Amino acid sequence: MTTSSSEPVVEQWDIFEIALRGPQTNNPFVDVALSAEFRFGHRSLTPDSFYDGDGVYRVRFMPDAVGRWRYTTKSNVAELDGVAGEFLCTPAGAGNRGPVRVHNQYHFAYADGAPFYSFGTTCYAWVHQGDELEEQTLQTLAAAPFNKLRMCIFPKDYIYNANEPVYYPYLRNADGQQDFSRFDPAFWHHLEERIGQLRDLGIEAELIVFHPYDRWGYARMAEEEDDLYLRYLVARLAAYRNVWWSLANEYDFLLDAKPMERWDHSFRLIQEKDPYQHLRSIHNGDVRMNYDHSLPWVTHVCIQNSNVNQAQQWRTLYRKPVINDECEYEGNIPLPWGNISAQELVHRFWMMVINGGYAGHGETYLHPQDVLWWSKGGVLHGESASRIEFLRRIIEELPPGGLQPLSDAWLWARMAGGQAGDTRIIYFGAHRPAAWNFGLPEDAPFTVEWIDTWAMTIEQVPGVFQAAAEVPAPDKPYCAMRLHCVLA
Amino acid sequence: MTTSSSEPVVEQWDIFEIALRGPQTNNPFVDVALSAEFRFGHRSLTPDSFYDGDGVYRVRFMPDAVGRWRYTTKSNVAELDGVAGEFLCTPAGAGNRGPVRVHNQYHFAYADGAPFYSFGTTCYAWVHQGDELEEQTLQTLAAAPFNKLRMCIFPKDYIYNANEPVYYPYLRNADGQQDFSRFDPAFWHHLEERIGQLRDLGIEAELIVFHPYDRWGYARMAEEEDDLYLRYLVARLAAYRNVWWSLANEYDFLLDAKPMERWDHSFRLIQEKDPYQHLRSIHNGDVRMNYDHSLPWVTHVCIQNSNVNQAQQWRTLYRKPVINDECEYEGNIPLPWGNISAQELVHRFWMMVINGGYAGHGETYLHPQDVLWWSKGGVLHGESASRIEFLRRIIEELPPGGLQPLSDAWLWARMAGGQAGDTRIIYFGAHRPAAWNFGLPEDAPFTVEWIDTWAMTIEQVPGVFQAAAEVPAPDKPYCAMRLHCVLA
Repeated sequence: MTTSSSEPVVEQWDIFEIALRGPQTNNPFVDVALSAEFRFGHRSLTPDSFYDGDGVYRVRFMPDAVGRWRYTTKSNVAELDGVAGEFLCTPAGAGNRGPVRVHNQYHFAYADGAPFYSFGTTCYAWVHQGDELEEQTLQTLAAAPFNKLRMCIFPKDYIYNANEPVYYPYLRNADGQQDFSRFDPAFWHHLEERIGQLRDLGIEAELIVFHPYDRWGYARMAEEEDDLYLRYLVARLAAYRNVWWSLANEYDFLLDAKPMERWDHSFRLIQEKDPYQHLRSIHNGDVRMNYDHSLPWVTHVCIQNSNVNQAQQWRTLYRKPVINDECEYEGNIPLPWGNISAQELVHRFWMMVINGGYAGHGETYLHPQDVLWWSKGGVLHGESASRIEFLRRIIEELPPGGLQPLSDAWLWARMAGGQAGDTRIIYFGAHRPAAWNFGLPEDAPFTVEWIDTWAMTIEQVPGVFQAAAEVPAPDKPYCAMRLHCVLA
Repeated sequence: MTTSSSEPVVEQWDIFEIALRGPQTNNPFVDVALSAEFRFGHRSLTPDSFYDGDGVYRVRFMPDAVGRWRYTTKSNVAELDGVAGEFLCTPAGAGNRGPVRVHNQYHFAYADGAPFYSFGTTCYAWVHQGDELEEQTLQTLAAAPFNKLRMCIFPKDYIYNANEPVYYPYLRNADGQQDFSRFDPAFWHHLEERIGQLRDLGIEAELIVFHPYDRWGYARMAEEEDDLYLRYLVARLAAYRNVWWSLANEYDFLLDAKPMERWDHSFRLIQEKDPYQHLRSIHNGDVRMNYDHSLPWVTHVCIQNSNVNQAQQWRTLYRKPVINDECEYEGNIPLPWGNISAQELVHRFWMMVINGGYAGHGETYLHPQDVLWWSKGGVLHGESASRIEFLRRIIEELPPGGLQPLSDAWLWARMAGGQAGDTRIIYFGAHRPAAWNFGLPEDAPFTVEWIDTWAMTIEQVPGVFQAAAEVPAPDKPYCAMRLHCVLA
């Protein structure tokens, strides 16, 4: 591979951008059609452009293969049509593993093959809080155990969250009304800076496309306005490798404005427009209102449900990865979804994860200035994050492929068992046997460690055990047993 | 009402018995048909007799009305036919409130109208342990908070329970084989003595008619042998006012021997033969195998299921009282159903009870001589019984009628709300708000108490609150809030 000094260079899964000057008359957000076909070998990808104000049209592209890519633009505007060029894609640098995909049916992996075990948290409106708090949030995230962040694109109006945002996504008309056909580039520049900062911290940005907590009209735009927004969103942000699309938070609280076929339609539009097929999901409010996650445009199951013992049922029902992204939050606010103990949240993480799924963190402690992590970010006050980090390390040490749940014997409410390669983990929850001899491998000797999920200790039981053996157990709740086969 | 000195007298809901001498030839258990019609005013009840050995046939009768009853026997044996007599039924004495019935659709009451809040425990095989241990069990029960005991009629063969019983229900043939057509009166005398002792302690005897833990053949008798057993059982024991019929423990583990239509048939046979319509239920093994409790011969829902947050669903599905009679046991044995912490069992009781249902206790601590309360009785070792007593006192102080669950807002996994009269109880489980303002009565001022379900304390919050008020909360898990309306 040769490079010329003038040839643009971008590393794999980073962003290559074409910027072209074009018309500023009428409504450039609506009137101008522009895309670019990027070709590599037999393949081509054709991202749409977006208008970035001041007469500038941009096409962003995330190359997924190392080597020379060539492109040609297509437009309904002559000066933007037929622009051709090329660039060289170089191997990904350290910390760049590409976008996250579904892997092994129920799990995730980066494009480079490294497993992605989802340990997410939630700061819904953090990009609408101003630089000081937003920078503090980034500092907290840099030291926290989370590799995914659920965050709203639109500002949020909700309990503890009444502040006006710094930026608005749309421009205003002469009469001060927002124009849902014209985007404000300042908003989007800010948003993509934050997404890039998350990327640089190794954090997936799970973008919540719609949500019902709204006083500005974003939740109840007309269908063609939604479509324009979705196209703009995908054109601007899909080239960020750490983007996930969460079509909504609590979609069912908006069913009066957006009936089910509009949700389906929006999903399909994103699916059609995103050249990279970033992960797509949708989050329910009422636990009886799961979206039909078996539909083909849903890549994985995202749910709100505190009944974590249903983890295996959700896997079986939808046959996709399951993230319980709101199994209630550690905190002490009056609302029931925001006041479980840290120990209970840690328990729910273990139940989801050992059953071969994933869970999401959130924190809702009362704060004198209403800076609750779950919505505004800031700093963490709770006791669950360190235990979630402990769990994450245990999961990351497992043989690759993700945990497969041990079924049948694990129907009891607050226990879970999972297997990855030659390792099994049995999580006991509120169960605390004095000894254990069920669900042990029958075909090999094995070693046993006891994990205290709250004290964050791991103790090896001396000796090697055979299948029928009774293994001494710590006789206290919230422990797990890790078994390693020791076949010679 | 006049009494003659020679007239038999029995108090209401006690046992009046006719004993007659009859043939001993052939098989008196099968060949002789004898019943007695008891008449009172416009009504008559016709219990069957049972053969008690040594040529003695008995008809037992539980009168449900005060006054003079008259009877006449009917038999296919001339000497037993047409025997007539009368007795005087006097008012029930202290502690005798009659049999327990379904009351207010989802609850129970004694025949005298006093509410019966079911707080049961489990000693499956206690009547098969010999007098010393059985007397100890009775002493323990006398000081324990339980008003119902699940107990098997047949001996039990299971883990920790391999001992031969003292008595066998059937006589043996000359070749040493049990004869499933001939009962051994010694067994039944012993059993009914124990049932009577429970009655005298104010404890309902929930008799488990069939169970799968068997090496003697009782679980897999022929259908006509089952029928003979059921008729004998009802004839002998139905006159005990504290009897409940639990058709099986873990009925579904016997489906290979007894298909569903046999369970239905057995239910209907008991329903037909029992003049007093004692409560009838059946207990499942696998949580996916609930019997259809909506069938008309089932008086209330008895289930095994550790997912206590389904309490409201079971009520709604079956429209009958719900007793979760195996929501796992306090203990430390290796089996998952027998090693939850005392705190978790207490939590499950609160979840069931505040949701307008009931729960059952069991205790399974490892013991050097395998005397586990859940099967053999003996003494209690755990920490849940005292907390269950605390809960029972709180429930018994409520206005009558039983708790009605507060729905909608209580869909969260580990919370429950219930109302009785002007009192509401909101149980928070793993939730621990710093303040609370949801689900409060909107139409009246109210007082608030906080109950610590584990520490067994009740603290009044000073003042009187209005609907929108935020009430300070203890910010620790496993607490409940009791609200009293204080309308002038």
